[in-house]
Amino acid sequence: MTHAKNDHLTIPIDALRDALRRNKHKRARRILRTMHPAKVASLLETLDADQRIAAWHQIDKRFEHKVLAHLSPALQAQLTHETEAGVQGEVPDGLSGEQGEAPDGLSSEQTAADDDSGDSPETQLKLVLEALENGKLKHIAQLFNKLHPARIAGLLESLPASERAAAWGMLDHERTGKVLRYLHEGVRRRLAEEMELDDLVDAARGLEPDDLVDLIQELPPKLGREILFTLNRRERERVESLLSYDEDSAGGLMNPDHIAVRADIKVGTLLRYLRLLEDLPPNTDKFFIVDRDNRYQGIVRARRVLTTRPETTITELMETDFEPVQAEQPSEEIARRFEDHDLISVPVVDGDGHLLGRITVDDVVDVIREQAERSIMGMAGLHEETDMFAPVWASSRRRAVWLGINLLTAFLAAGVIGLFEATLEQVVALAVLMPIVASMGGIAGSQTLTLVIRGLATGQLGSGNTRILLLKEIGIGLLNGLLWALVVAALAVLWFGNWTIGTIIAAAILLNLLCAALAGVMIPMIMRKLRIDPALAGSVVLTTVTDVVGFFAFLGLATLILL
Amino acid sequence: MTHAKNDHLTIPIDALRDALRRNKHKRARRILRTMHPAKVASLLETLDADQRIAAWHQIDKRFEHKVLAHLSPALQAQLTHETEAGVQGEVPDGLSGEQGEAPDGLSSEQTAADDDSGDSPETQLKLVLEALENGKLKHIAQLFNKLHPARIAGLLESLPASERAAAWGMLDHERTGKVLRYLHEGVRRRLAEEMELDDLVDAARGLEPDDLVDLIQELPPKLGREILFTLNRRERERVESLLSYDEDSAGGLMNPDHIAVRADIKVGTLLRYLRLLEDLPPNTDKFFIVDRDNRYQGIVRARRVLTTRPETTITELMETDFEPVQAEQPSEEIARRFEDHDLISVPVVDGDGHLLGRITVDDVVDVIREQAERSIMGMAGLHEETDMFAPVWASSRRRAVWLGINLLTAFLAAGVIGLFEATLEQVVALAVLMPIVASMGGIAGSQTLTLVIRGLATGQLGSGNTRILLLKEIGIGLLNGLLWALVVAALAVLWFGNWTIGTIIAAAILLNLLCAALAGVMIPMIMRKLRIDPALAGSVVLTTVTDVVGFFAFLGLATLILL
Repeated sequence: MTHAKNDHLTIPIDALRDALRRNKHKRARRILRTMHPAKVASLLETLDADQRIAAWHQIDKRFEHKVLAHLSPALQAQLTHETEAGVQGEVPDGLSGEQGEAPDGLSSEQTAADDDSGDSPETQLKLVLEALENGKLKHIAQLFNKLHPARIAGLLESLPASERAAAWGMLDHERTGKVLRYLHEGVRRRLAEEMELDDLVDAARGLEPDDLVDLIQELPPKLGREILFTLNRRERERVESLLSYDEDSAGGLMNPDHIAVRADIKVGTLLRYLRLLEDLPPNTDKFFIVDRDNRYQGIVRARRVLTTRPETTITELMETDFEPVQAEQPSEEIARRFEDHDLISVPVVDGDGHLLGRITVDDVVDVIREQAERSIMGMAGLHEETDMFAPVWASSRRRAVWLGINLLTAFLAAGVIGLFEATLEQVVALAVLMPIVASMGGIAGSQTLTLVIRGLATGQLGSGNTRILLLKEIGIGLLNGLLWALVVAALAVLWFGNWTIGTIIAAAILLNLLCAALAGVMIPMIMRKLRIDPALAGSVVLTTVTDVVGFFAFLGLATLILL
Repeated sequence: MTHAKNDHLTIPIDALRDALRRNKHKRARRILRTMHPAKVASLLETLDADQRIAAWHQIDKRFEHKVLAHLSPALQAQLTHETEAGVQGEVPDGLSGEQGEAPDGLSSEQTAADDDSGDSPETQLKLVLEALENGKLKHIAQLFNKLHPARIAGLLESLPASERAAAWGMLDHERTGKVLRYLHEGVRRRLAEEMELDDLVDAARGLEPDDLVDLIQELPPKLGREILFTLNRRERERVESLLSYDEDSAGGLMNPDHIAVRADIKVGTLLRYLRLLEDLPPNTDKFFIVDRDNRYQGIVRARRVLTTRPETTITELMETDFEPVQAEQPSEEIARRFEDHDLISVPVVDGDGHLLGRITVDDVVDVIREQAERSIMGMAGLHEETDMFAPVWASSRRRAVWLGINLLTAFLAAGVIGLFEATLEQVVALAVLMPIVASMGGIAGSQTLTLVIRGLATGQLGSGNTRILLLKEIGIGLLNGLLWALVVAALAVLWFGNWTIGTIIAAAILLNLLCAALAGVMIPMIMRKLRIDPALAGSVVLTTVTDVVGFFAFLGLATLILL
């Protein structure tokens, strides 16, 4: 061992070993970057084979040959082979990340071609997993360089925690911020928390203001403040003003980037001004018109500017009836307006009509997708489970809450059955059939519930037509109740040869389906009055009702008639 | 009665009476339009009070005063009052529909301001329902004139069938097509089927080709063919070529409207060409570059054109790495690309690279919303129930299928219980507790199932990481199984004072939660292999498994140990 002969070397070696052992690839790379290639070479020689390969994968591609020059031929051969094996053939050697990224720092759309020309997500995932398994982390870096940040985010989310950290470490410095933007909350927070503060600050500086605000909002307050402190005064003020809005409001969605002009200029002047800018912010389909106090006056569509002679004044093209959005407006309302009116961008104003910024369709698409995801995950009590590979312990704890709530309702149903122990003891067939009554009610009720929740969400169900819907649902409950009551009764008679039990189960099913219709309409209505999201808790309450009513009706009738 | 004195009058009166009685407002209006005001007046006098008011509400506003001139003062007063009462104060008298509609027949975005300045959806709905109840249909026409087609569609969907037909009849002729575009499938088809063919054809002619294709695809083939025949040859060929693509493919989403130019022209030439067009198709953020055979070459962004000097050639601005979409590509893939890359429009090409049209973000937003809606509704077996107020009979029939499928699984579970009748007869406490075991398994399983379905939908779950997820879910099942097994066991012991039952239920719950994790991962995987949508049928199969395993484990263990 040679590491004692030079004090200067000791610290990097220990720090590097520590970084490699703890999978802190980013730190390992930073340490390696600060060292002279000769030192890196001698350091590599002191490591055991596994660690050496791991360290090798953290060395910047541009320095590889310098380091190799200082190594023994045997090691040279081994490490060169390490770099070249594997991916070379599998990853198409088209655009590099740098080329693909918008060179002028604008739209991420520019890279649209990348992953369409490449492999399927499935193949990419397999590649990453293989690289992780064999410790060939360089292959991941190579793959990442060729992918769009959104795709990289998708790949990272497909990995379990430790593998994710390893792959994350291979991401190019300059692209970290962009990828963070595309990650789901839970994943983003966990990765950001594990990063060195310096790296996080670097990543944050690459983000657009609205994305930076999103990131800060999700980090622990201390970390968020530290990022804020690294910004210059103007940037900080800008971000702080955005931070003051609710995440789910227009203010939280808006981006300060936009082009605003005065109404008294000519189209030609506007075009000259635009040429000075060289490029426009993405999604610029309209320019905003403001007065001298920056108060919103109207819009001019870019396509109008393209199709009008330069002598025309902006006033002639201006549309003053295009309503701006208020900064406090909830994001769901805005999403619906974008959808209904096929919008690309809208201006955002404060209470006094001052132009604050704009909301663009790409962020609205994210809102729509998130809403949909939230309601689907929410129905299974998973609204906080955005990370498919969250640690077992964290997931278990979150899901336990939902199971616990459900247990209460299950015990309630069991309690109802318990009331009729004496009856069950005498007619055991009842115990066999009773889950059928409860289950049919639960299914019918959840159909009504789903319909009502959708109606409330789209605003199509209001106080004016609830009664009509209720009558319709009860009508359906009656028809289906009669149909399935007869079918179940017939089957029960065939099975147990007992007409009375058939009659009892028919009556219980009909009754339960009618109650299910009533509950399916009323539960979400009442929850909305109490300001509880019916999509989250509606189905638990509903099945409690249909279980209790189902068991009570069936066993109660049986007790009255059979005993 | 005077209606016999003039043969010429008899037919309109009968036809009108018939139309009013059958709520065919559109036909009533057409009949009234063809008549001289004096004839209309004498006709009104022959009708009884109710019918007279109903007929009055079908008279065009512009002819009201002419008709009034021929009426007795008493009737004049009555009918004038009828017109003025009610809405006047409630509906803000801002923009009329005509003003709000894009005068150049382009984007519907122009009317964005309308319903934002007006009442809330809830108030509008109440207004419509009141107007329907009091027979003051004119108020509905007044309200509709001030609303965006999307909002009108929303209101129509909030009405039960007969009221919907009445309100539909009050819609301005020229706007029918636009509103049809925004309606959900079921509602659209039913309203279109009820329309006179002439009106339907008129409405269809106002639609853009892609919307027209959507409409034709949803109508009965005969009706669709009749609409096609009314188009001229060029239009028909265009629509027919669009009809050849699958509704859920790029071809089905695309619109032929786009601007394509050759690469060898200068920016100044392009600008002059655009000025000739006067306006561009909505959502034109890029122009497509084609060769002389209309083969796709690349794109030029509109914002580049705006910021470049006129002498520049298109070649310098052209981006050749922007991948077009293939016409056969499924719409879900396209939606993901738009989302990931923040796109506004993409070109669509055929297999030989010929430019066919483009897909714009507004249609993609609809795809995303529909996908989300389909999966939420699908989970309750409601994937065909797009009309909240479909007739009771139609809804009952559709939902009965789902209830029937569920009944099969319920009988399967009952069958398992039936195996243990002898055991239940001896220990009735088992019957009380058994639903708890099944229910806990069902809830835990549906959590895993939801997570896996989402992972498959986003492409984050592939063959590479399924095993990892399975292990994680089994880990969670183990932890939560142990926790809730102990809790339930303790409660069972407290309730029945029997330690053996406590032990049995604990073991059954642990076992069922582990099976639930396994089933939650495997069921959607297998379904996908079999090309069944796991979002539709997954939960039925899953609860069958957890019910059967739950009952079998609990009652089976009890039989082994207690007897």
